[in-house]
Amino acid sequence: MPEDQTPQRFIDRLALAVRRRGTPVLVGIDPHVDLLPPNVFASGVENRWALPRGKLAEIVKLFCSGVLDVVASLVPIVKFQLAFFEQLGPEGMAALSDLVSRARRSGLLVILDGKRCDIGSTATAYAQGMLGPESISAWGGDAVTVSPYLGDDSLQPFVETAVARQGGVYVLVKTSNPGGGLFQDLVADGMPIYRHVAQWVETQAVKTQGTCGYGDVGGVVGATYREQLAELREAMPHTWFLVPGYGAQGGTPRDVAAAFDPTGLGAIVNNSRGILFAYRRREFERFGPSRWQEAVEAATREMIAQLSAETPAGRLVGNL
Amino acid sequence: MPEDQTPQRFIDRLALAVRRRGTPVLVGIDPHVDLLPPNVFASGVENRWALPRGKLAEIVKLFCSGVLDVVASLVPIVKFQLAFFEQLGPEGMAALSDLVSRARRSGLLVILDGKRCDIGSTATAYAQGMLGPESISAWGGDAVTVSPYLGDDSLQPFVETAVARQGGVYVLVKTSNPGGGLFQDLVADGMPIYRHVAQWVETQAVKTQGTCGYGDVGGVVGATYREQLAELREAMPHTWFLVPGYGAQGGTPRDVAAAFDPTGLGAIVNNSRGILFAYRRREFERFGPSRWQEAVEAATREMIAQLSAETPAGRLVGNL
Repeated sequence: MPEDQTPQRFIDRLALAVRRRGTPVLVGIDPHVDLLPPNVFASGVENRWALPRGKLAEIVKLFCSGVLDVVASLVPIVKFQLAFFEQLGPEGMAALSDLVSRARRSGLLVILDGKRCDIGSTATAYAQGMLGPESISAWGGDAVTVSPYLGDDSLQPFVETAVARQGGVYVLVKTSNPGGGLFQDLVADGMPIYRHVAQWVETQAVKTQGTCGYGDVGGVVGATYREQLAELREAMPHTWFLVPGYGAQGGTPRDVAAAFDPTGLGAIVNNSRGILFAYRRREFERFGPSRWQEAVEAATREMIAQLSAETPAGRLVGNL
Repeated sequence: MPEDQTPQRFIDRLALAVRRRGTPVLVGIDPHVDLLPPNVFASGVENRWALPRGKLAEIVKLFCSGVLDVVASLVPIVKFQLAFFEQLGPEGMAALSDLVSRARRSGLLVILDGKRCDIGSTATAYAQGMLGPESISAWGGDAVTVSPYLGDDSLQPFVETAVARQGGVYVLVKTSNPGGGLFQDLVADGMPIYRHVAQWVETQAVKTQGTCGYGDVGGVVGATYREQLAELREAMPHTWFLVPGYGAQGGTPRDVAAAFDPTGLGAIVNNSRGILFAYRRREFERFGPSRWQEAVEAATREMIAQLSAETPAGRLVGNL
């Protein structure tokens, strides 16, 4: 593809955005109400959860808008964690909708992290609701996360909708949580379940391959399992990884280094709490809670620098 | 528990409701826009999806209200399929919220079928948003469905929230779709993955056991796999089953008979399209599309009669 053409498919748009920004940092928008800085609330609010949900949704929207305004010029992509919006009821979902629009308008790609899964026409309803611009979908996501337990015919509707709407799908493969191994690590036919899922995902990635060499179907592979990341990178050469678990969950730059190909492509690395609530981290306490937005910026820049210094993502800079 | 006391825990409320109504029929509220009867739309609407999403949400709400009004006196419990509301954006979610309130007011128990899954505090956010009366949760569900791939620490927040709020959790064990076996049927340590999940669920069911003998943690086991239903009933004596796949997906009364214990308790059997869109079935074409509500009633009564005649659920009648 000549460089003066804007690519159409999700994965090529992602690769271009990562190269343009020179970083694979993905900011996770996980607005835990309990962790929000005190000054986004009116003074005198003691019990946040006693506020009406509509008021909480308004505050969450204000906070997330502030985060988006800071990160839009620094990173290629953000990921909204749907649980924290759903928790606030219909008003929370309306806030999500507004925030997705805001993110898109500011040039960010948007992943809707809902880990949805269902069968047949129900999976299609989820996919059609979430994938594609707001003119054709309710939620306006460029990509979604999905859970694989229900099998092939639960995943295909997401893949088909993604292909039709130039979107992406990230399938849970090997997750970052300590208990993730309970079923994922069980060994069947000589390999763990997550490798069976990996095989399915890689096959789909090949089928949905863009000019960048990766497919619109990607995989979620946690930062907290360094060996598995390396093993899966090798087994899934066409699969772009969404890597959670960096920062607050313990993943380090060295842990995630194996997620990339030698050119620095092939993975986006999520950080949610470590960026959104950086004002709570000792390294950024100089800002104090009221300057939380500056802490967001400093933490984002810090993560970009760390990945540049210690992973192949460093080769992205000046790559365009 | 003396019969004049209203039970508190979800599973005992469910058992009581099933015995009072004399049936384990669970009506699935899956409002596929394409299947809605024509007369819920203004005349002259040719392309339903060209309507604004807010208008569609209004129509879906009207239709679902009509369904609830019919089934509230016939069945103990309904299940909202979240995908079809999410597909309509924030206005769809607002309609869902209103419909859950309406169902609760009319005495129905409510399952929110979202098959949510995530880790740690995110799973807690989902659970707290969904479980419990509307005074403390955004969505007011009595129970939720969850997907197990993320493992123990993704499921525990749902179990803990359910216990704290007198709610229930249905974990996907063996699903009704043709492709469900891709990962669920892989054999590890001498048994299929769904049996590993079953083991986890049964352990949790024992821990959350009510006076009825079953636990607040239940399992989703499809009607379309008759042998597995029987096998799992034996392996999971404390686990109440939510059985999808009846009717439109091919499950028959005989298929689901093994889901029950000899007293007729231990399972609820879902039917969505076969009831909601009964006006499209040949057996009920006498009503015509405009009398869809009568078709809903007839189909519900038919399923109640079928399960009474051909499964242990027949022993429920007159049991209180």
